[in-house]
Amino acid sequence: MAEELANILNKAEEAVHQRNLDQVRQFCQDLHPPDLASLYEELDPESRTFLSDSLGVEIFTDVLAEIPDTLVEDALDHFEPDEQREILESIPDDDRVDILQDVSDKKRDNYLELLGDEKQDSTRSLLRYGEETAGGRMTTQIGKVLAQMTVKEAIDHLRTELESTETLARIYVIDQSGKLIGKIRLRDLAFNPWDTPIRELLTDEEHTILATADQEEAANMLARYDMLVVPVVDESDRLLGVITADDAIEILAEESTEDIEKGAGISGDASEQTYLNTEIATHFKRRFGWLFALALLAIASGVVMIRFEHVLTNVYLLSLFLPMVVAAGGNTGGQASTMVIRAMALGELDPEDTARVAWKEFRLGAGLGSLLGLCIAVIAAFIVPAFHPEVPRDFSFITFGAAVGIAVAAQVTTSTVIGALLPIGARRIKLDPAVIAAPAITTLVDASGMVIYFIVASFMLGL
Amino acid sequence: MAEELANILNKAEEAVHQRNLDQVRQFCQDLHPPDLASLYEELDPESRTFLSDSLGVEIFTDVLAEIPDTLVEDALDHFEPDEQREILESIPDDDRVDILQDVSDKKRDNYLELLGDEKQDSTRSLLRYGEETAGGRMTTQIGKVLAQMTVKEAIDHLRTELESTETLARIYVIDQSGKLIGKIRLRDLAFNPWDTPIRELLTDEEHTILATADQEEAANMLARYDMLVVPVVDESDRLLGVITADDAIEILAEESTEDIEKGAGISGDASEQTYLNTEIATHFKRRFGWLFALALLAIASGVVMIRFEHVLTNVYLLSLFLPMVVAAGGNTGGQASTMVIRAMALGELDPEDTARVAWKEFRLGAGLGSLLGLCIAVIAAFIVPAFHPEVPRDFSFITFGAAVGIAVAAQVTTSTVIGALLPIGARRIKLDPAVIAAPAITTLVDASGMVIYFIVASFMLGL
Repeated sequence: MAEELANILNKAEEAVHQRNLDQVRQFCQDLHPPDLASLYEELDPESRTFLSDSLGVEIFTDVLAEIPDTLVEDALDHFEPDEQREILESIPDDDRVDILQDVSDKKRDNYLELLGDEKQDSTRSLLRYGEETAGGRMTTQIGKVLAQMTVKEAIDHLRTELESTETLARIYVIDQSGKLIGKIRLRDLAFNPWDTPIRELLTDEEHTILATADQEEAANMLARYDMLVVPVVDESDRLLGVITADDAIEILAEESTEDIEKGAGISGDASEQTYLNTEIATHFKRRFGWLFALALLAIASGVVMIRFEHVLTNVYLLSLFLPMVVAAGGNTGGQASTMVIRAMALGELDPEDTARVAWKEFRLGAGLGSLLGLCIAVIAAFIVPAFHPEVPRDFSFITFGAAVGIAVAAQVTTSTVIGALLPIGARRIKLDPAVIAAPAITTLVDASGMVIYFIVASFMLGL
Repeated sequence: MAEELANILNKAEEAVHQRNLDQVRQFCQDLHPPDLASLYEELDPESRTFLSDSLGVEIFTDVLAEIPDTLVEDALDHFEPDEQREILESIPDDDRVDILQDVSDKKRDNYLELLGDEKQDSTRSLLRYGEETAGGRMTTQIGKVLAQMTVKEAIDHLRTELESTETLARIYVIDQSGKLIGKIRLRDLAFNPWDTPIRELLTDEEHTILATADQEEAANMLARYDMLVVPVVDESDRLLGVITADDAIEILAEESTEDIEKGAGISGDASEQTYLNTEIATHFKRRFGWLFALALLAIASGVVMIRFEHVLTNVYLLSLFLPMVVAAGGNTGGQASTMVIRAMALGELDPEDTARVAWKEFRLGAGLGSLLGLCIAVIAAFIVPAFHPEVPRDFSFITFGAAVGIAVAAQVTTSTVIGALLPIGARRIKLDPAVIAAPAITTLVDASGMVIYFIVASFMLGL
């Protein structure tokens, strides 16, 4: 956030706390709805009410579309029914749907009743689509013209709809039944004779998305084909709305956050509130589940240690490299799973590529493991003796180094392959691959690493 | 990727391998440049040459802008100088700059010489901006009109530039010196009398970005304010170009990939090639550094184990929970660092928030640690005895459970705070916070966890 903006936000926050109406209005004049939403989020409940009163219904309508979903219900609640109607009537339909999805079922019905018949119907039909589908995300306020119009008729038609249209970057051409048959650009209207038939100007729209498709699919389509707008259609190819590039940015940011958080063993949906404004209880709930599950899983490594007690107590020096062997597996497994999960998220990998991934990561793991094993073997065989550690009689540091090195190589190789294949396996059984990320893999290969280390060491050192 | 598309891509690939020119052309007709670029990337070098020949200079020009940077030089090399000129002259200037940034210095000069004087000058001036700045990313082919024009003059002016203009979503108004003074929408031109002065129609452009600013800043601005285009200006506020929302999508995806990979201990820039097409040597180089550094760091944990030999050998049962205590710290530290790093990436956290973050994570860590510690204490005190493990005489399982529980609580609390604060500390000393993510924190708290566990256990069990 730019310094200047942070500065104004601070001043505005102070003015709110002092309940200084004039100053609040003065500072807020320079702020855009997303900035005002940040300010709103930072405040305590009473100050929020003061701020929304100060801004007035008209400005607060734009702010409401930007505040985190958990705060929407309280924000609306505070207004009188006629103000609520004013807010809900004047807000763009995609934002209205978002807002209504954030309130309780009972409240939603009340709010819907406030709307005029036409808005009520269109809102109800949008609410049928899930929040994370293309239909749930689209805006329906777009430029549409009929194929049989002339340029002049199209311009006149659009002029009457101008106010309620979010973007004219693309104007869609439909037939009488509402079916999408192509698109024109506003420039085609501006720079062509008025009697030109639209039919002669239209170009095919090659990319469309079904209203029931996942919103991420729409965002990926916009990203791949560098589009600013993608039309959303129903099964009969009727044009319902569009998803714009700024929607796509939001969708992709949400999905990235989700993947990153899942990858760290944080469950549930990311809060729309900022990190600091999210309640401790929410953080707690999202983190404890995995922490507990992984703790139970980690006891398996403890059981391995108990089983191999005789190896460790015979040559206690083995414990010097035990945490390292174990950790190297977690680290390389985490790297491999991250690469594979990201490649899947970007649509680069299909389940059919499993064999190619396994072969690639096997060679990578063997290479990384051999080099790392060699380095560690040198340390174990030649540097460790200089510290005169306690060892049994006839102990060979060269054999010790070789054992540690081989264990490292084996652990890194297997962990790399496990790390790469588990996310693919998860997707095969319809689990979200991001869930099987670093922490789960680390805990798993902790146990396998100990088994490898103790077996290699006991075999080579004759324990 | 949709099935239909994958299907055509497969057929096209087969046709290329059979060197069947007609079929290649037939299948490629249905493919868009980004799809053709995917196909190109999948092929071996000779097949690539065949494909680019089959497509012809005109179509391949659009494909070239989409292929991974590492393949650009070879792709261009293969054409004759006059074809190279044709490609470089006809490609949009931002793509031309991207391509020239991907080739060697010597080749770049050769290619620049091929261009006409005007294009050469404008390209050279764009090349001055770093690849990751707003200036290096912008397109200069935009609609610009002078404030003193009328609507008619503006339309005529834009008409002549229509072909070379990427977007007319926003038309910028400049003064004689090139300074940005506002914007109009194409609809303002289309729906207003021809003699209206532009000056009366323009609205302020409140958001601009400096050409030298980081491209991520531009993308975040587009995302925050739901913009489709942001103008790029120099220090004197002269309009240089624009960054569009589809650029922002690309920038944000690249940055997310970078953050995710850094968070898993993968160094260097992400390859533009897909995971499977990236060479093993590249993967190896990006992964080995951290793997090696973390392995050395992990020996610290081994040293701790050696130091506390007497504790472990006295009550070997302690090893049952050792991996769990250690891992719980890594897991909770990883969760905390992920939340904080993501919050910083989204611009939600400033270094001044350190105390608030520390206090929040301390309470969270204490809460998570106490609950987890209690669960584990119950297991240690009441379930473990049922397995009749070997223990010294007079051993109290209740004390043992209490010791394990307290160690878990202490380890989770400290690791959570460490995990949250290290990334903030990294940013304070101008390091990329994403680098200090899960693997580094895990390795660090491995060692501290062992110290905590052994000290608590030896104190409470009197060892």
